[in-house]
Amino acid sequence: MVAVGDELLLGDIVNGNAAWLGSELAAVGAPVTHSSMVGDDVEAIVAAIRHALSLAEVVVLTGGLGPTTDDVTRDAVAAAAGVALVRSPALEEQLREKFRAYAVDLPAAVMRQADVPEGATPLDNPVGTAPGLRLELGQQLVLALPGPPHELAAVARGGVLAELRERSGQVVLTRTLHCAGLGESNVAELVEEAIEVPAGVDLAYLAGGGVVRVRLTTAAATQARAAEVLDPLVARLQDALGTSVFGRDGDTLAGVVLRRLTAAGATVAVAESLTGGLLGAALTDLPGSSAAFRGGLLVYATDLKTSLAGVGEDVLAEHGAVSTQTAQALARGCRDRLGATYGIGVTGVAGPDEQEGKPVGTVHVAVAGPEAVVVRSVRLPGDRTRIRLLAVTVALDLLRRELPEPLAFR
Amino acid sequence: MVAVGDELLLGDIVNGNAAWLGSELAAVGAPVTHSSMVGDDVEAIVAAIRHALSLAEVVVLTGGLGPTTDDVTRDAVAAAAGVALVRSPALEEQLREKFRAYAVDLPAAVMRQADVPEGATPLDNPVGTAPGLRLELGQQLVLALPGPPHELAAVARGGVLAELRERSGQVVLTRTLHCAGLGESNVAELVEEAIEVPAGVDLAYLAGGGVVRVRLTTAAATQARAAEVLDPLVARLQDALGTSVFGRDGDTLAGVVLRRLTAAGATVAVAESLTGGLLGAALTDLPGSSAAFRGGLLVYATDLKTSLAGVGEDVLAEHGAVSTQTAQALARGCRDRLGATYGIGVTGVAGPDEQEGKPVGTVHVAVAGPEAVVVRSVRLPGDRTRIRLLAVTVALDLLRRELPEPLAFR
Repeated sequence: MVAVGDELLLGDIVNGNAAWLGSELAAVGAPVTHSSMVGDDVEAIVAAIRHALSLAEVVVLTGGLGPTTDDVTRDAVAAAAGVALVRSPALEEQLREKFRAYAVDLPAAVMRQADVPEGATPLDNPVGTAPGLRLELGQQLVLALPGPPHELAAVARGGVLAELRERSGQVVLTRTLHCAGLGESNVAELVEEAIEVPAGVDLAYLAGGGVVRVRLTTAAATQARAAEVLDPLVARLQDALGTSVFGRDGDTLAGVVLRRLTAAGATVAVAESLTGGLLGAALTDLPGSSAAFRGGLLVYATDLKTSLAGVGEDVLAEHGAVSTQTAQALARGCRDRLGATYGIGVTGVAGPDEQEGKPVGTVHVAVAGPEAVVVRSVRLPGDRTRIRLLAVTVALDLLRRELPEPLAFR
Repeated sequence: MVAVGDELLLGDIVNGNAAWLGSELAAVGAPVTHSSMVGDDVEAIVAAIRHALSLAEVVVLTGGLGPTTDDVTRDAVAAAAGVALVRSPALEEQLREKFRAYAVDLPAAVMRQADVPEGATPLDNPVGTAPGLRLELGQQLVLALPGPPHELAAVARGGVLAELRERSGQVVLTRTLHCAGLGESNVAELVEEAIEVPAGVDLAYLAGGGVVRVRLTTAAATQARAAEVLDPLVARLQDALGTSVFGRDGDTLAGVVLRRLTAAGATVAVAESLTGGLLGAALTDLPGSSAAFRGGLLVYATDLKTSLAGVGEDVLAEHGAVSTQTAQALARGCRDRLGATYGIGVTGVAGPDEQEGKPVGTVHVAVAGPEAVVVRSVRLPGDRTRIRLLAVTVALDLLRRELPEPLAFR
């Protein structure tokens, strides 16, 4: 893989394309073995293409296909292959058609995007103006894809990934279990007691934001054969990890909570202190959240905990704003005042300074439901940003454990 | 630059280290010309080091210095230099000391971190166990730094960046102006009318999240000489871009709003619909936000706009939940009920479906202050996630324009 752009080398943007494409390519049995970033410079790109061709069968470039003078990937592909750039009348017509919809004068530079290295095939870009390029060099293949992430995804999914899957001659299957409420080393211990990883299966742990993902990967001739290998392992892992498993594959904790709430015909409200709105933001991130999320109270200033959420002044005086009692009162208060089935209360010390003599990272979360109030107190690691994010995970997970799991999941 | 780790190639994590270090290295006059990622494989790392040494004077590696068996960067550095790894008794003692604090049994693998290629110097890692490595090869320099971002930053700032600054013999100065309320092409037009960019000065536009950053960069023998070149340009840009400029260099929009509120002894409250807590989260992201942020109301369900924020039922019936009138009532309502100097109301359609016949991206923001209510209506582009983020920027910027600029900024 070769990513093109000065902005990548200067650190103005992160090379997210390499991560996205790396994951997609691994899934089609064409794992990336070497990846590089070079500036908007023909010679540097040519050198990178040649170096990559010495290391791998297929070279995928991203970026540098746009209309401006610093977009030189197509020149570099032509130079690396030792062929000329030829203007394609069909692409010229396509570009005119695309710009007609925008009713703008067509800058001459736009037509550079109709240039194709001799022998290369353009790859249709349905969401942008710059087509990709596909060029066979003997047994090897050079693919140039656009840099904007949504254009990259569209062109890759438009046939590139399918071709590479066919070329690799195998299917790579991945199964992921998402766990919350256990640390990475606890998860690893339970996993290693539960299964022995057979040869040909890869096991990986990916931890972040209070969630540990356990991922199994295997390659086989067919999807069915790969599933035969992985599914019994996944079933054993799911038993061993028990209620800490909240989802599979593409699931997110907020998504699972919303799915369970919606399936139960239930709603939720929040009362947030240290998270300041992050919990509400997580619960409204997905489309359809309005079916289950009622709203919330951001009670950052202590007096608002009383006036908005009804936390008793005696509770605050006796136990402080950072206490299990206040978390419980916040959960009950928002549940009652916003008319929700469940209320979540979150309070704690995000730092950088301690509060009420309680250390940074102290967090109390409570969930009030129709039958009971549950509370969980933790001491979270990291800086202010991390503590706030982890507090959201603890809160969502506490509610998740109160909600029945829809049968469809098992 | 060479980043080491299977997880980078598989796309499990994004190579944020390359972006951070790329930006830091550019700032010390040692811009990255080529960057690569390789897996946890000695041969591949050795090949990447040799290739990098053929392209640049200094090679910086990140990652692969930890204690586990797949951490092989130090073996690869030794192999690339053709020297042996030697166990350092001083490092062994340091490691024992570091683990003493954790009161755990010392796994034997930990001691691999005390291995140093012959002729290399360890670089102190104050926030982790794995030291970095510094190895001179003739006129060239190989630096191996730890992969966890906070360890990378600590080791890089602990002397590496200073050494490279000295080696480059020049100071690279960057000045950035942050603009909100203008699109990238409008900003570019104003900039190009205002200044002619002299030779030796780089001009870049970085747009994202509704903010356009204009960045000027130049290199000189001293900081003062570079400032002499950039400061008059910055002054002219600031005049040309006028009130759209909200900050400089490390500023953020939320940070500027909090600074202005605090300087004026004023406070703010929010009433959020489509943003669901993101605005509150942005205002509480920074330490010290409690001085200015009172709290907020998340009025996602329509009935809560009335019961929590006091929006008249007639307003909702006549104009709908997505309207300037509702935004104004939300702003007034949260200002009154939360006892803040300013109230911000945000309502709109995040999508994917239209609402009340209003298209996706319709957003109304209002700010109620001691003297007036201002409102801004926009049609925002992109998907649900982008619309919600842009709405936060519009809201913060509307408040920012109501607040006096502290004199210190000019």
